[in-house]
Amino acid sequence: MFVSHLSCPKCRATYEPNRKIQLCTCGSPLLVAYDLKKTEKALKKDSLPQRRNDLWRYRELLPVRDFKNIVTLGEGMTPLIRLRNIGGEMDLPHLYLKDEGIIPTGTFKARGAAVGVSMAKELGVKALAMPTNGNAGGAWALYCAAAGIQAVIVMPKDAPPIPRKECVIAGASLYLVNGLISDAGRIVGRAVTDRGLYDASTLKEPYRIEGKKTMGLEIAEQFGWDVPEVILYPTGGGVGIIGIYKALQELQEIGWIGSRMPRLVAVQASGCAPVVSAWQAKKTESVFWENSATVAFGINVPKALGDFLVLDAVYATNGCAVAVTDEDILNTQAYLGRREGLFVCPEGAATLAAARRLVREGWIEKNERVVLLNTGTGLKYPDSVDAEPPVLQPGDAIER
Amino acid sequence: MFVSHLSCPKCRATYEPNRKIQLCTCGSPLLVAYDLKKTEKALKKDSLPQRRNDLWRYRELLPVRDFKNIVTLGEGMTPLIRLRNIGGEMDLPHLYLKDEGIIPTGTFKARGAAVGVSMAKELGVKALAMPTNGNAGGAWALYCAAAGIQAVIVMPKDAPPIPRKECVIAGASLYLVNGLISDAGRIVGRAVTDRGLYDASTLKEPYRIEGKKTMGLEIAEQFGWDVPEVILYPTGGGVGIIGIYKALQELQEIGWIGSRMPRLVAVQASGCAPVVSAWQAKKTESVFWENSATVAFGINVPKALGDFLVLDAVYATNGCAVAVTDEDILNTQAYLGRREGLFVCPEGAATLAAARRLVREGWIEKNERVVLLNTGTGLKYPDSVDAEPPVLQPGDAIER
Repeated sequence: MFVSHLSCPKCRATYEPNRKIQLCTCGSPLLVAYDLKKTEKALKKDSLPQRRNDLWRYRELLPVRDFKNIVTLGEGMTPLIRLRNIGGEMDLPHLYLKDEGIIPTGTFKARGAAVGVSMAKELGVKALAMPTNGNAGGAWALYCAAAGIQAVIVMPKDAPPIPRKECVIAGASLYLVNGLISDAGRIVGRAVTDRGLYDASTLKEPYRIEGKKTMGLEIAEQFGWDVPEVILYPTGGGVGIIGIYKALQELQEIGWIGSRMPRLVAVQASGCAPVVSAWQAKKTESVFWENSATVAFGINVPKALGDFLVLDAVYATNGCAVAVTDEDILNTQAYLGRREGLFVCPEGAATLAAARRLVREGWIEKNERVVLLNTGTGLKYPDSVDAEPPVLQPGDAIER
Repeated sequence: MFVSHLSCPKCRATYEPNRKIQLCTCGSPLLVAYDLKKTEKALKKDSLPQRRNDLWRYRELLPVRDFKNIVTLGEGMTPLIRLRNIGGEMDLPHLYLKDEGIIPTGTFKARGAAVGVSMAKELGVKALAMPTNGNAGGAWALYCAAAGIQAVIVMPKDAPPIPRKECVIAGASLYLVNGLISDAGRIVGRAVTDRGLYDASTLKEPYRIEGKKTMGLEIAEQFGWDVPEVILYPTGGGVGIIGIYKALQELQEIGWIGSRMPRLVAVQASGCAPVVSAWQAKKTESVFWENSATVAFGINVPKALGDFLVLDAVYATNGCAVAVTDEDILNTQAYLGRREGLFVCPEGAATLAAARRLVREGWIEKNERVVLLNTGTGLKYPDSVDAEPPVLQPGDAIER
């Protein structure tokens, strides 16, 4: 047991661990704090290569107390791929993509679900509910099935359809709403109150972020504990970027990485860019983005509960926030396929579009090591690609 | 360089390596032979945990000579998941699933493409062509894009549509044919002849199998070099099962595993079961299966070029061949989702359906370690799951 307590980043209140708890009484999300002296003693860098090849290799930096509660489908240690072709064309030789498409359920949401559901199991949760734009719902539904927890999932009718299939195959209770994720959130809120369900909404339970922070731990390990100069992250709810920043702080505290932080870049779509707007105005919170719209459905979040934590991570690391257009996103998605053989999700493509702009503007320098976070596989977004191939008859020949 | 030569398993002819070569002059596929004494000296078990976490960790058992020709998207070392819930229900405590959905392009075809395309690059291939039922085409198109090789892909119009998107995003030349994979094969054959393309059809180049054999190497490593008693494999073209058998033979020769082989089970759909039929009749080759049809599109192969090698692997290991119905496949796919949180492809589900039958029949015993090969993610087969969730209006409540 390496967790010391839960802590509110807003009002500094603290809570005991090992009980079902959602938000701080002040309304802020809670963060998990560890006894890092104990972690430092128990966890040695040298032991990692011998350990299991998933995110549970970092168990002394994760909240699950009893390992028999771990619910795993083999998530984590996703590949870090060097983009030699595109890096060459951009004159950016140290360009990498961390591919979160190579994970159960096909997106980084599996990390949050693995740790979140394992903790729900440990805390004795029998049923939980969550609103989602799709991928988190699919991931939580499947991990809940493995854990024997009933899941109630509500998602917008217009969200991409494949995660529905994940919910159905998992045996979850799935509902669509003729509205936005905020409408789904209100329906879930009422179900939570009326039926005493555990609320697994983004940042309304403290453990999802612990799963997502393992992306930061892995990046540090994959660079031999000498962290890259820049990490670009597609930012919707922001849990990924908050988690990566938390991971790097913890690694600093146990002395595994030095004082230099990667500059964290929050990438948004120009049709939904509340964090970019706040960063440009040097604010510490964002304003609700009216009539948001983007092909990158996963980052269509008009106002995130953790926006202040995202902005804190960006400011504290001398990072920045960048918005890119849908047209640029789709062109970049095709470019990654054609030149690197990667079929990424639109959210992931947005990070390369942002990196190109930052290179042009001189914000990223040529010898820096730059990591793009691709948060999911393009297989979950088949509609983002048009395919109208010619149809031949048996016996036909291919024209030259 | 660990390859000694290419060898024909039918007429025993041998060929020099490091040149573009397709079939043996007798028409049989060729197999890659290694100087295993040299491999034994160069490759030590103890060194593996320190190595990269993909299939290239076994480079002394792979054909690529110059590592700069390796084309990788992070493929291999897929998770081996213990099925505790279903294993409990079946009274089969040592039941595992190797999940080839957690790999670039979402299916095991990535392994064949990674090694096949790397070798094509090493051999100077500029353009290649292949017929496919979908997933191999998507995988080869994407790896070819990374390698800078032009790919011409021909697939049946009725094949599942998502792999088309992979071909398009990769910039491949994609054609559909209003017919079967055999019709696609004839169109490819003509293009190969007319235009001098490299023929990447199943088993018509010797390196794809080397990629797929890494599944066998990984299973052996994941079981600590004490191989399981039974491996069930969904069998279409059969390259996976042939590859696993070849891997295990090579591991025996370098002394990493003992003389006991896992019993290999070829699983087919009852709508296309030529190997099962041949095995039941104790034949060494299969007969073309007329009017084949199954929901498991990847194993809809009426007559495989390597059928004699599949049957040899089954006979030599005291394995067997089992056919399961489409109904059983779809029910089992749902069962894996509901009980284990796994969204597998129909082909993968077929292996569990077969295992249940073999347990009932007493062919698999209760204390045996049994591995199901799930060859791909269900995300590539969204149409295999019906989803008609209720649609709520904003402000609605979920009914109890």
